[in-house]
This record gives sequence, structure tokens and C-alpha cells, in this order.
Amino acid sequence: MATIEKIEAAAKRLHGNARITPLLSSPFLDEIAGRQVLIKAECLQHTGSFKFRGGWAAVSSLGFHARKRGVIAYSSGNHAQGVAAAAKAHNTPAVIVMPADAPQLKIDNTRALGAEVVLYDRIGGEDREAIGAKLAEERRLTLIEPYEHPEVIAGQGSVGLEIAQQTAALGITKAEVAICCGGGGLASGVALALEKYAPNMRVRPAEPVGFDDVARSLAAGKIMSNPAATGSICDAILTPEPGATTFPILKRLAGAGVAVTDAEAMRAVAQAFLRLKLVVEPGGAVSLAAALFHPDAFESDTVIAVATGGNIDPATFQTALSEFTG
Amino acid sequence: MATIEKIEAAAKRLHGNARITPLLSSPFLDEIAGRQVLIKAECLQHTGSFKFRGGWAAVSSLGFHARKRGVIAYSSGNHAQGVAAAAKAHNTPAVIVMPADAPQLKIDNTRALGAEVVLYDRIGGEDREAIGAKLAEERRLTLIEPYEHPEVIAGQGSVGLEIAQQTAALGITKAEVAICCGGGGLASGVALALEKYAPNMRVRPAEPVGFDDVARSLAAGKIMSNPAATGSICDAILTPEPGATTFPILKRLAGAGVAVTDAEAMRAVAQAFLRLKLVVEPGGAVSLAAALFHPDAFESDTVIAVATGGNIDPATFQTALSEFTG
Repeated sequence: MATIEKIEAAAKRLHGNARITPLLSSPFLDEIAGRQVLIKAECLQHTGSFKFRGGWAAVSSLGFHARKRGVIAYSSGNHAQGVAAAAKAHNTPAVIVMPADAPQLKIDNTRALGAEVVLYDRIGGEDREAIGAKLAEERRLTLIEPYEHPEVIAGQGSVGLEIAQQTAALGITKAEVAICCGGGGLASGVALALEKYAPNMRVRPAEPVGFDDVARSLAAGKIMSNPAATGSICDAILTPEPGATTFPILKRLAGAGVAVTDAEAMRAVAQAFLRLKLVVEPGGAVSLAAALFHPDAFESDTVIAVATGGNIDPATFQTALSEFTG
Repeated sequence: MATIEKIEAAAKRLHGNARITPLLSSPFLDEIAGRQVLIKAECLQHTGSFKFRGGWAAVSSLGFHARKRGVIAYSSGNHAQGVAAAAKAHNTPAVIVMPADAPQLKIDNTRALGAEVVLYDRIGGEDREAIGAKLAEERRLTLIEPYEHPEVIAGQGSVGLEIAQQTAALGITKAEVAICCGGGGLASGVALALEKYAPNMRVRPAEPVGFDDVARSLAAGKIMSNPAATGSICDAILTPEPGATTFPILKRLAGAGVAVTDAEAMRAVAQAFLRLKLVVEPGGAVSLAAALFHPDAFESDTVIAVATGGNIDPATFQTALSEFTG
């Protein structure tokens, strides 16, 4: 089970290995949002997303023999790179099951980080969890689930510890924390960290319209699924439903979810380019899009948006600049 | 005169106002360079470049009456924004003299930061220093020269203090520090800081081919000018010659300069996008270009490249991605 003690222990193992990412801001963004917006730049994390934290926490928690046999993960790309890089640093073999239609950059990077990549057909309906489980059994690999693994949640929770420390240094104790949500690993880890270290801050899940399973699940009080598996540009966070482990944490601690359109996510990508000098992928920008373009969804004077990843194909980034910087 | 004592004092005034920018890295970039490359991400500084430091140091050093009358600066854009933002925070009026052909984004941002912008014709040969001096006299404004002002050099030198602290935390004491060079304010300030706090690190100026006045001046032992005033995409660092104040510091402390082509600068912009998730402008990427594409110009196991700014027009960024990420 994910606990604050596990988060604190994971943060110790991450110390000196994961980056403490900066909390950025721009008067231009504050003006758009009509309030103070702080951006936690996890796109600057190793491998370009917060997923490195969870990958490191999980691999570093393994015993000697399990490390030697290796790990397996299924991922649309960011978890893949995070686990691959963490495994490489621990001299642990890594097999990554990725959808064949994931951004080429993510597939290439995962291979370049030393992992064995197994592609599957997401659109045709192949089940990545079944593929992962089968390979894990055959080769006695440890499966590192992208958001249900307690050590993964603990690693992601270190983002919450940093937010609590960085905002305290700025004299800010009350805020809503918008977090891009797939399965809810980051959101639930951060929620647990804030519960102890910044109790006046509340997680607000942010998702793409049509893939707002977390928002709808929170509203209904029970786990709800998305009608479709693909169809948003926010590839990093298109999971079918909240995790069985993460949802109870979010139900207890998070505020209502916010859904943004793909166009709003792309507009946030363009604003991050113009005003923050950050490369953020669409799925990593839905939190910023929520803060900028849905001001009525928030109540607090300060919104912290976690920019969760920056692994965007050049063509998609160029589209964001062409359409939304004019 | 710029001194280490002025740098230390400026760093105190900057504390809590300028950002401590992260020192980033990527195994992919290390592989290209054939050595460890660390990137000091000053593009993440307020206003998108290190110039905010010098602007803040200069404005905060003024007395009550001088602050009230206001300041003036001439700049192709980054110094303009740095001074404008610093002046605004001190409730000081700011007049900025900018070339009419500067990137529109820089002109727009300078105005949005509350400054009065006066445009001049750089290509037609109007003399920005004469324009600046005349306006300063008429309105009794304090001129903040972009690289000759001792407080500006002191503010930029705070980058060197951070590099010394951040590398010490990583156990690195020996390195070459590649710095994008216009008039040499940043390079000379950093050189002074490293002389005291990291004496085994040496500044290596990086410039565009055809505008390598600092490199040629260092080689000749006296100030040499560039044959042309425009003609490189690296607009931020096209100054006619090293400063009379900065050159003696560089002559005493810096190693040889490195010149890179515009194509290499654009290729470094693309690599910063792909591998660091940073938006860097061409003039801010010549240091990274030197580290990546001129490995024979360096000797040390570690090269630190200061990515000095990120204020790039979307169209130029798109060109870098189209041509150099394929």
C-alpha cells in the first residue's frame, strides 16, 4: 500500500538521483489565469517526465536477485523511459511493452536507454496488461505497473514533498495543485505528501475531454471507465480508468477534476514555450491548460500546475507553435 | 570596476529575486560530445535570459532619487527585458532603445513589462549608444550599459557563483565553462566568480563564426572588431567588439574562444528541445553547440555550457526543429 512513510523513504533513495525540478512562473501567465500560477517543471526531470521518480523508487526497492533477473513495464512512453533509465543505472535488465502507435521519439529513447522494447497493437485492442503479465512470468521479471505499484506511487509522491518545500520557501501554504492524470499515480502520491506537509493544498486532477475518467469517477464516487482508448493528442495520459489503488486515495483527498480540450492543451504547450522556455507535451500540459483556460474551476489565489512531461514529437510541437503563438 | 566583492554583494541582492537555474544533462548529449556536458539553464531565468540578473543588480544599486528618475538601456532584446522587469519591480521608469529588426517577441515583451521602447535602425547604421546617451541626458536617466556597467557584470557573475556551488555538490571541481559571448559581461563576471570559488574551472567564450571578436581579441591580445554588424541568426550576441571593461578580465582569466556556425547553433537548439526539454535561442545555444560539435576545442572531462537565453521567435524555432530533428 502507498503510504506517506513509503514516500519519505522513496524520497531518500531518490536524493541525488532524481532532479529537484524548479517551480517557475511568468507574469504573462498570471495575467491569463487571473491569479498566481506556479509551474512545477517535471518535464526537466531525467528522461523528460516525472515517471523517472517512480521507476527509480521501484527498481531501487528490489532485492539483489530480483534486480538481477530484471523488470518489465508497459507504458505509452514516459513510464517506459523512466523505468529503462532507472533500471540501467541499477544494472537491471528492462523489458518495456509499448503501443506501436506511441510517439516515435519515446520508442527510440526507450531503446537508446538500453531497454528491450516489445510493441503491441493498442488500436487493434491487444491487452498490454496480459502481454506484460505473460512476459513477466516467462522470464521471472518483476512487473512495475505504471500507477498501481506502491513504490511507483511513493516515488511520484516525492513531487509533492518538493512542492511543499518550495512553496513554503515562497511563503505560500494554500493552493490548488493541478495534476495531469492518467491512472492517478502522480496525483495520489502528491495528495498523500500534501496531506502531511501542506495540508491546505489540494490536488485537482486535470484530464483531456472524453478521457476524464478520474473526474467522472470522483463525481460518481466509484470507478468509471472512458468510452474510448484513443482519440486525444494527450497520449501520455490515456488510461482506461483510475487505478484500484490510486482511486481511493484521490476520493479521500482530491478535489474535483477539470477536463480540457486538445486545443487548450496545445495552447498551453505554446504558452509554456513563449513564457517559460519549457518544452511540454500535450498530456503534460493539461494541468497548465486547466489553470490558464478554466479559471472558474479553481478557488484559491494560487494554482500550482505540474507540467508532467516534455516528450513531444517535433511535428506536434511545430503544430502547437503554428496554431497558437500567432 | 567589476570585482568579486561586487559580485558577492549583487548575489545577496539577487537572492530570492533571481532564480537559481538548474544544471541539466542528458546521456544523449554526453554521447555526442564524447564527455560530460552540463547545461546551466539560464533560459529559465526571469524574462528568459541571464540578463535579468545584471538588470536587477544595476537597478537595485541605485539611490532613491536615481530610481525615481528612471533608467535607460540599449539592447537587441534580452538586456531590454531584464532591465524592464527589474525596473518594474523597483517602481523605476525604464526607457529601452532597441533595433527595429529585433525579434518581435522581444520588442513586445519589453513593452509588456512596462518599459517605453524607442526603436532605431541598426541596418541603416544608426548608433544606439549615441541615441541612448542623448535620451539619458535629456531626461536625467541612469544609463545601464549592457556589459560595461560594473553592477551588470556583478549581477551576471552570480551565474558563476551558482556554477561553483552546483558543481561542488556533484563533486566536480575541474571543468571548462563555455559561455555565449556578446560584449563579454556574463563571461567576465563568471570568470571573476570562478577565479575565487572554482579556480580549476576556466571560461571559454563561444561566438558565431564571423562575429568572433572576443576569440580574435584574445588571440591577438588586444581588442579586435567584427567586420559586420548583422548577418548571423544569433541576434542576442552580435556586438561590435569586446568591452573595454570586460576584455582585460577575459584576457587575464579566459581560455581561447570557440566559433560555431549558425547551422551548429540551430542544431544545438534542436538538441536542447529533444534532450533537455528547454527552449534556447540560437545566440543562447552557441555554448552548447561548441560543447557538442567542437569537442577538439576542449580539454577537460567536463564542459559546462551556459544556455544564456530562450527568447526565440516561433518561426525560427520551427525551422530548427524541421531541419535538425529528422
